[in-house]
Amino acid sequence: MVSALQALHQHPSAAGASPAPDSGSPLGVDVLPPSTPYLDLDVGAAVTRYRRLGAALPGTAVHYAVKANPDPALLVALVAAGCRFDVASPVEVVAVLEAGAAPADLVYSNPVTRRTDIAFAAQRGVRLFVVDSLEETAKVADAAPATSVLCRIVTSGEGSDWPLSRKYGCSTDQAVDILRAAAEAGLDPAGVSFHVGAQQHDPGAWEAPIAASARIVERIRRDGLHAWMLDLGGGFPAHLEGGAPPLACYGAAIELQLRRHFGANRPRTIVGPGRAVAADAGTLVSTVIGVVHRGGTRWVFLDVGVFSGLVETLDEAIRYRLRTTADGGPTGPCVLTGSTCDSADVLYEKAPVQLPLALAEGDVVRLLGAGASTASYSTVGFNGFAPLPTRLV
Amino acid sequence: MVSALQALHQHPSAAGASPAPDSGSPLGVDVLPPSTPYLDLDVGAAVTRYRRLGAALPGTAVHYAVKANPDPALLVALVAAGCRFDVASPVEVVAVLEAGAAPADLVYSNPVTRRTDIAFAAQRGVRLFVVDSLEETAKVADAAPATSVLCRIVTSGEGSDWPLSRKYGCSTDQAVDILRAAAEAGLDPAGVSFHVGAQQHDPGAWEAPIAASARIVERIRRDGLHAWMLDLGGGFPAHLEGGAPPLACYGAAIELQLRRHFGANRPRTIVGPGRAVAADAGTLVSTVIGVVHRGGTRWVFLDVGVFSGLVETLDEAIRYRLRTTADGGPTGPCVLTGSTCDSADVLYEKAPVQLPLALAEGDVVRLLGAGASTASYSTVGFNGFAPLPTRLV
Repeated sequence: MVSALQALHQHPSAAGASPAPDSGSPLGVDVLPPSTPYLDLDVGAAVTRYRRLGAALPGTAVHYAVKANPDPALLVALVAAGCRFDVASPVEVVAVLEAGAAPADLVYSNPVTRRTDIAFAAQRGVRLFVVDSLEETAKVADAAPATSVLCRIVTSGEGSDWPLSRKYGCSTDQAVDILRAAAEAGLDPAGVSFHVGAQQHDPGAWEAPIAASARIVERIRRDGLHAWMLDLGGGFPAHLEGGAPPLACYGAAIELQLRRHFGANRPRTIVGPGRAVAADAGTLVSTVIGVVHRGGTRWVFLDVGVFSGLVETLDEAIRYRLRTTADGGPTGPCVLTGSTCDSADVLYEKAPVQLPLALAEGDVVRLLGAGASTASYSTVGFNGFAPLPTRLV
Repeated sequence: MVSALQALHQHPSAAGASPAPDSGSPLGVDVLPPSTPYLDLDVGAAVTRYRRLGAALPGTAVHYAVKANPDPALLVALVAAGCRFDVASPVEVVAVLEAGAAPADLVYSNPVTRRTDIAFAAQRGVRLFVVDSLEETAKVADAAPATSVLCRIVTSGEGSDWPLSRKYGCSTDQAVDILRAAAEAGLDPAGVSFHVGAQQHDPGAWEAPIAASARIVERIRRDGLHAWMLDLGGGFPAHLEGGAPPLACYGAAIELQLRRHFGANRPRTIVGPGRAVAADAGTLVSTVIGVVHRGGTRWVFLDVGVFSGLVETLDEAIRYRLRTTADGGPTGPCVLTGSTCDSADVLYEKAPVQLPLALAEGDVVRLLGAGASTASYSTVGFNGFAPLPTRLV
């Protein structure tokens, strides 16, 4: 399928760039690009969300997690607004530096990374790396000598819609060992990092890891080591179905815990939001390709799905708010599904969605709060369905 | 990230084509492409698997399900070997026609499809469509008049590693109604279609749907309608961890059920295997980027993961056989994980894998049986990690 897929990739709207996706240029031989799906991205709205998060967390530096949405126009606008960045790969380093960010404003937050990738980041001026093991601490000391490291500790992930596995983060005891080892290896044991899980509904989720971080900082201080930074991670919610407390509640809860556990010895704090900045700046625009009734169930098929941007609907974890061109009349339950032939390409079935009974083929369905973790999660073209293009509004 | 990602897409090895992935051409600005991961695809082995499946099912036409692996070299080789095709989108139609297939040898198996896509396929000469609802039957009658339709019935999916949801397939009663409606709408009610679920371990899984299909054919015969085709779907297993019965067992079981339920009135039969043809022709070659120990658990991080081709490891459904450059010494359990920062990017944790205790950074891990549902499921570059390139061997 290379010829057709290559054409998809060369189609300007399929590369995450700004041209309108309905520009009509042919895909491959003579497969015309459909007018939907695409992601409408409002860069100004993302900058507003960035500023609101900063205002809710005075004194805390905001590092946008590039993985949420690496659109270059978004990165440029965030740089201009004073944002810093959380990156996890050489390509992300290059993307934010090209957008104008200073390398000193980056935290390389991938705790287990290819050695050459660490060296690449260090050569580009990145000075702050996250680790969560003795092995990776030694690797950073080798590939990026004399830089600073944060040790990531594990959290429960409770209260989060897209909970963390045990993939990253060590215990507090291990963190103490790791920061000591970092110092012995000539690194700066800068402090502690954690993540409470994406789309975290409970502002109190930061309490336990802040308390643990304070214990770690206190223990290494007895060794004469000065930990000066605390990375409070992401998890700040977007406006999805079911709602979430306002950002100010998160700021107040975090401020309280920082005072309680660190007192006058408060470290510099940073956060690494992705979804909270980008999600509400994006609307995924799709079209109903069919409505079918089988066995008493109404199935609504969209022209977008799990493999073209909606991977976070797996297990129905992230529930987008829906608006349709048929809104206004009576509604009823339906299963919402994508259009590839993969049986996993079902968006919401266990908890069906309420959609207008009049909804029909050709109606437009908008998924709100879809600016994060969508376009960059698209497959290269599974089943012949193109990646989700972005349109700047 | 567009500049860097666009460069990834323009890198020949990232587009599913044949050049060696270590050709050294720069990715984007100055991010050198790593030498792994990539998919080694042996097209000859796929053709052999196609022939074996054909031999196990004499008299049944094999339609390769393109979604499993749309590599153009693979499609060309399968056309030359006499294979037919199962497609689900305009891009897949174009891909197999470009590979030399005759449009009459295609079945368009996506039961709910954009109206313009059906028309596109019909214009290109496709004459056989799968439906599973009255709504889509009417759509096919409108967009592809006077063509043939198969009605897909639901199966339990039991015995399968990647089970089907209720997304596709109707009841036998509905199938009778749909085939009658098809005839009234001027379509040829060609017969019945079903799918027993991917990587199906039980050759007996075909029994119930074959029996149901026979009942449907008999019921519409009383209306004077002649159903002449039965699509037995895919589900034939690849050689993954745990093994599966040989293809001959599936052929024998299916033959027995066809005789029992259809007797002398046996329809033409087709199958739509994807994995059974492509999986064992592919080896995913990856490198260990780090081995870390935390809380008594050994974690092995690969440079490939859920978002760069291994999506079918979600819920640990598909378990690839593993070979490493450290094989031979004592082994122990470990969690195997990918390298993106997404917490869902963990391959095997609930059932840890046994890998050499000596396995270390830089060792190569080969995932066998990975030729299907990998490269085409790669994301466009989530977290800055490139899509999985294919290398023909």
